[in-house]
Amino acid sequence: MANGLEVKETSRIEAFSDGVFAFAITLLVLYLKDPASMGGTSLLQGLISQWPSFLAFVTSFMTILVMWVNHHNMFKYIKKIDTKLMFLNGFLLFFVVLLPFTTSLIAGNILSSSAKVAAAIYSGALLLTSIFWYCLWRYASRENSGLLQPSVKRDHVKKITSQYNIGLAFYFIAFAVAYFSGLASFGMVLLIAVFFAVTASIARV
Amino acid sequence: MANGLEVKETSRIEAFSDGVFAFAITLLVLYLKDPASMGGTSLLQGLISQWPSFLAFVTSFMTILVMWVNHHNMFKYIKKIDTKLMFLNGFLLFFVVLLPFTTSLIAGNILSSSAKVAAAIYSGALLLTSIFWYCLWRYASRENSGLLQPSVKRDHVKKITSQYNIGLAFYFIAFAVAYFSGLASFGMVLLIAVFFAVTASIARV
Amino acid sequence: MANGLEVKETSRIEAFSDGVFAFAITLLVLYLKDPASMGGTSLLQGLISQWPSFLAFVTSFMTILVMWVNHHNMFKYIKKIDTKLMFLNGFLLFFVVLLPFTTSLIAGNILSSSAKVAAAIYSGALLLTSIFWYCLWRYASRENSGLLQPSVKRDHVKKITSQYNIGLAFYFIAFAVAYFSGLASFGMVLLIAVFFAVTASIARV
Amino acid sequence: MANGLEVKETSRIEAFSDGVFAFAITLLVLYLKDPASMGGTSLLQGLISQWPSFLAFVTSFMTILVMWVNHHNMFKYIKKIDTKLMFLNGFLLFFVVLLPFTTSLIAGNILSSSAKVAAAIYSGALLLTSIFWYCLWRYASRENSGLLQPSVKRDHVKKITSQYNIGLAFYFIAFAVAYFSGLASFGMVLLIAVFFAVTASIARV
Repeated sequence: MANGLEVKETSRIEAFSDGVFAFAITLLVLYLKDPASMGGTSLLQGLISQWPSFLAFVTSFMTILVMWVNHHNMFKYIKKIDTKLMFLNGFLLFFVVLLPFTTSLIAGNILSSSAKVAAAIYSGALLLTSIFWYCLWRYASRENSGLLQPSVKRDHVKKITSQYNIGLAFYFIAFAVAYFSGLASFGMVLLIAVFFAVTASIARV
Repeated sequence: MANGLEVKETSRIEAFSDGVFAFAITLLVLYLKDPASMGGTSLLQGLISQWPSFLAFVTSFMTILVMWVNHHNMFKYIKKIDTKLMFLNGFLLFFVVLLPFTTSLIAGNILSSSAKVAAAIYSGALLLTSIFWYCLWRYASRENSGLLQPSVKRDHVKKITSQYNIGLAFYFIAFAVAYFSGLASFGMVLLIAVFFAVTASIARV
Repeated sequence: MANGLEVKETSRIEAFSDGVFAFAITLLVLYLKDPASMGGTSLLQGLISQWPSFLAFVTSFMTILVMWVNHHNMFKYIKKIDTKLMFLNGFLLFFVVLLPFTTSLIAGNILSSSAKVAAAIYSGALLLTSIFWYCLWRYASRENSGLLQPSVKRDHVKKITSQYNIGLAFYFIAFAVAYFSGLASFGMVLLIAVFFAVTASIARV
Repeated sequence: MANGLEVKETSRIEAFSDGVFAFAITLLVLYLKDPASMGGTSLLQGLISQWPSFLAFVTSFMTILVMWVNHHNMFKYIKKIDTKLMFLNGFLLFFVVLLPFTTSLIAGNILSSSAKVAAAIYSGALLLTSIFWYCLWRYASRENSGLLQPSVKRDHVKKITSQYNIGLAFYFIAFAVAYFSGLASFGMVLLIAVFFAVTASIARV
């Protein structure tokens, strides 16, 4: 097919993904509650007692933001898509869509006796996200796939792959840590997002 | 009109449809509940007892994803739109928008005595979706419509039409099965989505 | 500025509007409730007793769909935007955003003693929508605005203006009718949407 | 990289931002309630007693609309983005996403003894928004950043910077005023939005 059609293909998968990222990141706010509507204490005390909800909101927001930036950077290298790539991207988005739910789970249970289970679900969903992320990239960047921009060198592909491996390893550790401490696992997910935001801003990905 | 304007037309109906697909797929998550907020059992038991909600979430997510991929592939062949096509596409989106609601119905009733009614509504809405899908494609692909890319051959149009017929037949069967068993009808909708995801990824549509 | 930049301007106001249209149309579904979650009767009886919600859902969906199609057609004629046009479009979107709320009002009150008030609010908000619509079009299409495509003839502008006047008149009547009967006013809004969908599909706007 | 790729980059960050703006502006409507569903008085009385919710809805809608128009105008000058700019834009969007929540806080508490705290949070979040806005613009417009359109003159950059400074100063005053009166601070935020809408429409930014 002509070049014009290929450009159009990529732009639509990006638009759909952007919609899901933007919507999931905005839905997070629905889980923050006005203390006044729950009765009881003063506004400030009510908000302070909700700190797990705010921390979970910040953590998930940062995580989706890092993901969106990386998705953006990844698709800069992709010039063509096929149906398999659309489904791999769709499975990735499945876990993005799930994030507002797992965020509400961690916010509501991090101080309870179910903290470990909640943290395992929260970090486990992100681990699965990074696994599908890895599959998506491997599929698009495999030699002779014809899906990458011809200007992208194999060395550069390897460098990007190893960066994704770091994310995979980090989320695996956060998932494993949930076995010992819910709070530590949760804190690690926040640190991962901050780490990626800082390194991505400094380094030229 | 000039070619530039026609390209713009198609891109906006795609953007609007992408928005509706992306929001509908993300709204599904609002029907998953934190067991802690409902009181009672432990987190893990609470989640396991919600399995119909998760299964319905996965089924509807996969169904919308398959639809989006097919919508994407269909509009690759369409180079021009008119008002009638915009409305046919709009009626199709009506049932996409309805899906989060019918998903909550099937999730909430699949284990109750209303399982058959819920499954009939769930699969019936998808049957109507595939009927409008069929009308949309027939309208766009009818001979001398002037809406398709000139490079698309009649043979190829027929091949695509027969693929859409399969979807129509499958959803009709799922709808009919609801008369006998709600669970069987629900399971069939899940199988249809998996079937289309697998065949679409293997075959070159 | 160069032509490339102007094209970009129009495409972004369309993308933002499409987002709001698509989101508002999808939010409508959140007001449909699973009867099982409200206790009481069987699923089917529960759904049937909710008929005002479904009718309001269909009416508002059709109304937004007609608006989106017309917005699409209007912006085909606009080649350039300025800040005033962005705000006029924003005020128009204000009432689109409000529609899920007025829809829930009409659905919840059409059978109560507040039916007339609810219908006046519902049709009144749509009347205001069509007033801002009219202002937006008059602003863009005024002579020597430089915002329209140069290929658009004055005769054609007048024809479009008179079509928008019909919508304005219809919604004014629906608003006035609410003084006598809520149901009649509500039914009229549904008829207006159907009327515009049918005429738009037949006539070449 | 080629010019084509750079255009694509800007268009995607705009699409993602548009998505977040459009969803946040539409989510505001979810906090308006049907008085019938809350029991008690007549529809009209119930709506009138909810006036803080409507005023907060209008204020936040106008604020997001002004922001979107300015975001649109700012990105007209930006021809290229990098990862740091994507994150600065992301932090800005964090506060846009938070706005439906702070809007519900101000609506629910403006008449209670917590009015000052609610107004401080509401205006404080907007102050932070304008601080990140300022950082984003300074980063993009710093000399030799290579991110601006080459046609943008330094004088023009300075003029825009000083306009953003006005917003910063206004929100700082609204935040400071909250220490004395919640209502006055809230009213000032509404006035700021109206002021920017009027001046932006008159002046050519």
